[in-house]
Amino acid sequence: MVEPLFKRLVIIGIGLIGSSIARGAKAFGGIAGTLVICDSNPAALARAAELGLGDAYEASAAQAVAGADGVILCTPVGTYAALAQTIAPHLAPGCVLSDVGSTKQSVLRDVEPLVPANAVFVPAHPIAGTEFSGPDAGLADLFKGRWSLLTPPAGTAEAAVVKIETMWKILGAQTARMDAAHHDRVIAIVSHLPHLIAFTICGTADDLADETRGEVLQFAASGFRDFTRIAASDPVMWRDIFLNNKDALLEMFSRFSEDAQAMARAVRWGDADYIEDKINRSRKIRKSLIDIKQA
Amino acid sequence: MVEPLFKRLVIIGIGLIGSSIARGAKAFGGIAGTLVICDSNPAALARAAELGLGDAYEASAAQAVAGADGVILCTPVGTYAALAQTIAPHLAPGCVLSDVGSTKQSVLRDVEPLVPANAVFVPAHPIAGTEFSGPDAGLADLFKGRWSLLTPPAGTAEAAVVKIETMWKILGAQTARMDAAHHDRVIAIVSHLPHLIAFTICGTADDLADETRGEVLQFAASGFRDFTRIAASDPVMWRDIFLNNKDALLEMFSRFSEDAQAMARAVRWGDADYIEDKINRSRKIRKSLIDIKQA
Repeated sequence: MVEPLFKRLVIIGIGLIGSSIARGAKAFGGIAGTLVICDSNPAALARAAELGLGDAYEASAAQAVAGADGVILCTPVGTYAALAQTIAPHLAPGCVLSDVGSTKQSVLRDVEPLVPANAVFVPAHPIAGTEFSGPDAGLADLFKGRWSLLTPPAGTAEAAVVKIETMWKILGAQTARMDAAHHDRVIAIVSHLPHLIAFTICGTADDLADETRGEVLQFAASGFRDFTRIAASDPVMWRDIFLNNKDALLEMFSRFSEDAQAMARAVRWGDADYIEDKINRSRKIRKSLIDIKQA
Repeated sequence: MVEPLFKRLVIIGIGLIGSSIARGAKAFGGIAGTLVICDSNPAALARAAELGLGDAYEASAAQAVAGADGVILCTPVGTYAALAQTIAPHLAPGCVLSDVGSTKQSVLRDVEPLVPANAVFVPAHPIAGTEFSGPDAGLADLFKGRWSLLTPPAGTAEAAVVKIETMWKILGAQTARMDAAHHDRVIAIVSHLPHLIAFTICGTADDLADETRGEVLQFAASGFRDFTRIAASDPVMWRDIFLNNKDALLEMFSRFSEDAQAMARAVRWGDADYIEDKINRSRKIRKSLIDIKQA
């Protein structure tokens, strides 16, 4: 019998991503000997137990990580600093600590300095999700064909990085390694800014006069429905992401604002060629996305 | 045998919407005795004939409308003024002229003054679409369960309005009547602004350094993929929509910009409550959309 990657793996936070990892670990095997689910929310933890997502359930993160050789933080990134402080004294020698946060510079800032010298921190970010939240929302194949990006700082023990890469490959993802700052810029334009825009435009519509708002909902065309699908995502998770990727997000927002103002100006002054050219560029990007089979 | 709504119905422009009407007319029956397809693009017209979308095919709009009791303009709204000038002298007495344009004030401005006194113009806008274009893109059930909004000016012959409403109901749509100016504002926030934003953000991503751009495509998360789906729509159609709903679109863009700037400011200054509150509002709108079964 082949040894699992981790003898005792702890998932802290049993939301969409945490419960997808747990489901994948059960479905595909080879990841965890004992899978421990930990969540500070009693309702979420009880539901995880009802669903049979793990082998053991633990409300206290400090107790959960004791004796574990693998720990994955799956809570909103705003909780990481306090959580790292709580678990650090209890991490076993040789433990591989990882996470799934969408902002990697903040994670290195908040977690890495607290990790004991005999444990290894391997930050990771699976680029996958749906608009649903909580332990019921997880899917065993959520990561299938998607990317998981690892941002280990220079000098991170190679064996630990390979362990986390292997876990993501078992879950069906492709992996890549990159610098945390670079990661944060790429994800700001690909994911964080689109979410900021989607959240905003829903509010803009909601602020219109009551009569118009009713009709906005009634007549919502496909454009708006796609936007609101994005906008249904978890509020605390996204609040934390915005606050923890501030610099890259604000830079991308600034670039976008300039471009949107230029488009609005072309509309005002009837610059048909400019508008058509920009739309044609968008189509090409869409085509590239389809060509590389991410669409 | 029940009489069809129109003895001779002419569809001018055999793109996504025109070919969906043609397919629906064949599939559901009762709409057209003879269905005439007209397109100034020889390739599109030949393809429509190959697909058997109509009973007759005509390159000349003037010749196509002769003797017709129903004509529907399905070309980009920027073509309407010239097209109306071409067909007006050839419209038969009693002919019902309609359209499917996404901007209704411009249509009343460009078409209505040219319609002969013994014909009736009934502007309409089916809120349906996909990101695909051309005669192959049409779907018989594209309008099923969607809205078609009619904006007939005061004094429009009721029988003609009912005919167009009946056509849309046969095609599976619900209908509503409203003022053209009101229509243009509602659709600006629901459809036109989301498209302007989607076109823009694709360009913003494309302008990033080459290396980052490649990664944007490679790692495109769900947020960006939804945006680019919208952004793949027909360039000429959308260029014309933007230019012909300028005032409402610029007003909605201005409202959105203020709201987006406020969100960016909250990110810069770490106003967690503001951000969370805005995201929660978005979720509520999403929920309303699901509740009224438009999602």
